Amino acid sequence: MSGSLAVIGLGPGDPDWMTYESRALIDSCEDFFGYAPYLARISLRPDQRAHASDNREERARAEAALGLAAQGARVAVVSGGDPGVFAMAAAVVEAMEAGPAQWRALDFRVSPGVSAMQGAAARLGAPLGHDFCAISLSDNLKPWAVVERRLRAAAEGDFVIALYNPASKARPDSIAAAFALLRAIKGPDVAVALARAVGRPDEKIVLTTLGAVDASLVDMATLVIVGSSQTRLIARPGLSTLMLTPRSYGAAR
Amino acid sequence: MSGSLAVIGLGPGDPDWMTYESRALIDSCEDFFGYAPYLARISLRPDQRAHASDNREERARAEAALGLAAQGARVAVVSGGDPGVFAMAAAVVEAMEAGPAQWRALDFRVSPGVSAMQGAAARLGAPLGHDFCAISLSDNLKPWAVVERRLRAAAEGDFVIALYNPASKARPDSIAAAFALLRAIKGPDVAVALARAVGRPDEKIVLTTLGAVDASLVDMATLVIVGSSQTRLIARPGLSTLMLTPRSYGAAR
Repeated sequence: MSGSLAVIGLGPGDPDWMTYESRALIDSCEDFFGYAPYLARISLRPDQRAHASDNREERARAEAALGLAAQGARVAVVSGGDPGVFAMAAAVVEAMEAGPAQWRALDFRVSPGVSAMQGAAARLGAPLGHDFCAISLSDNLKPWAVVERRLRAAAEGDFVIALYNPASKARPDSIAAAFALLRAIKGPDVAVALARAVGRPDEKIVLTTLGAVDASLVDMATLVIVGSSQTRLIARPGLSTLMLTPRSYGAAR
Repeated sequence: MSGSLAVIGLGPGDPDWMTYESRALIDSCEDFFGYAPYLARISLRPDQRAHASDNREERARAEAALGLAAQGARVAVVSGGDPGVFAMAAAVVEAMEAGPAQWRALDFRVSPGVSAMQGAAARLGAPLGHDFCAISLSDNLKPWAVVERRLRAAAEGDFVIALYNPASKARPDSIAAAFALLRAIKGPDVAVALARAVGRPDEKIVLTTLGAVDASLVDMATLVIVGSSQTRLIARPGLSTLMLTPRSYGAAR
């Protein structure tokens, strides 16, 4: 038995944002576990098998992948973005920790990828050009009080804030609550970017402010970037406006 | 004149961590600006020109690149990691903002990459599996008081913290000061990873705690990850220990 498990990042939507390592690992694996839309993004050979599952079944997916790897298969778990950032790496390592000893003895690796905030940042210029936080608004696995505590700390530290999982059908109001909390500390003039489906054909980016933002524009496919006090916009005639968080803090331009 | 400027992320040391987009952009550009060790990592054709500069001359490098692009050249600025994360994207956009209008009219793009914290996280398992902050300890362009304010906010929010630029010859003591500040809030038992030269042949990872960490092991090539209260280590007999920040908060394992 020489099974292996690779957790593979596909990057955001654009296939050219995948790394060479992730592509090579895909070519070397036999069984692929993942959320169906991510599996649909990779082209498999006839001898490779896809095992699609629902987005909410991360732990069960991780356990199924580990179980098959422990039987000797070369298994991949695929994630959009970077599997290490609000994605499958943690679910798999949690399952390894709780499961049989042979799961911890597997040949295991994580192949990193470009995360959604980085794809969005590339489109916007340099919004993450200085210190930043990444916060998931999902309260599936953590109390909303923890989300609020972190939003408050991030605002008080004047970080740029990338918000993952900002809304879902089960939580249509959490993004509006987050905007209200941040606005109360940071004020209405802070720049906000809503980056939807970055790297996909239906990509759409909206630039606004904490005072003017329309929370109803935010859905599951949106990555939200809330600027720091230093973040500013740079208009370009005939071209998209750039969002910049400069490297210096509080200095003259 | 149809000059262009691409800011291109090479990823951390391992060439296989580059994206297909970055590699294709390298092939399509004529002039390459960057810190010499990054330029040394890409293979150029005889008709492509490298313009190496010192690591501290980011703004001058950005202006030289924009100036050449404005003359009609297809110019690349290369960065290790992700250019959007403590790298060249912000320096270039700052120069575009301050420079002549024709710089803002250029065909401009950023190609994202895997950042150092993501390479380190991949090696460690899933240390960034939950909300996290990225903070640069460099005080070249921001007052140390801002660094302290952000470290304090990140600790009070119980974020996982990735520390970039943790030490340099000019600032040998800033990482020790950061560890002391974090230890005073988070306590001595929090897990710490020192990830040096990730993806390079001399890669070395040390796992320790805020109470036991030896700040003298941290140099310019080190990426430091300080866990949250939830972060834990998972020993694997004969294999590297994993670092996990679980998706759940405060729940039973």
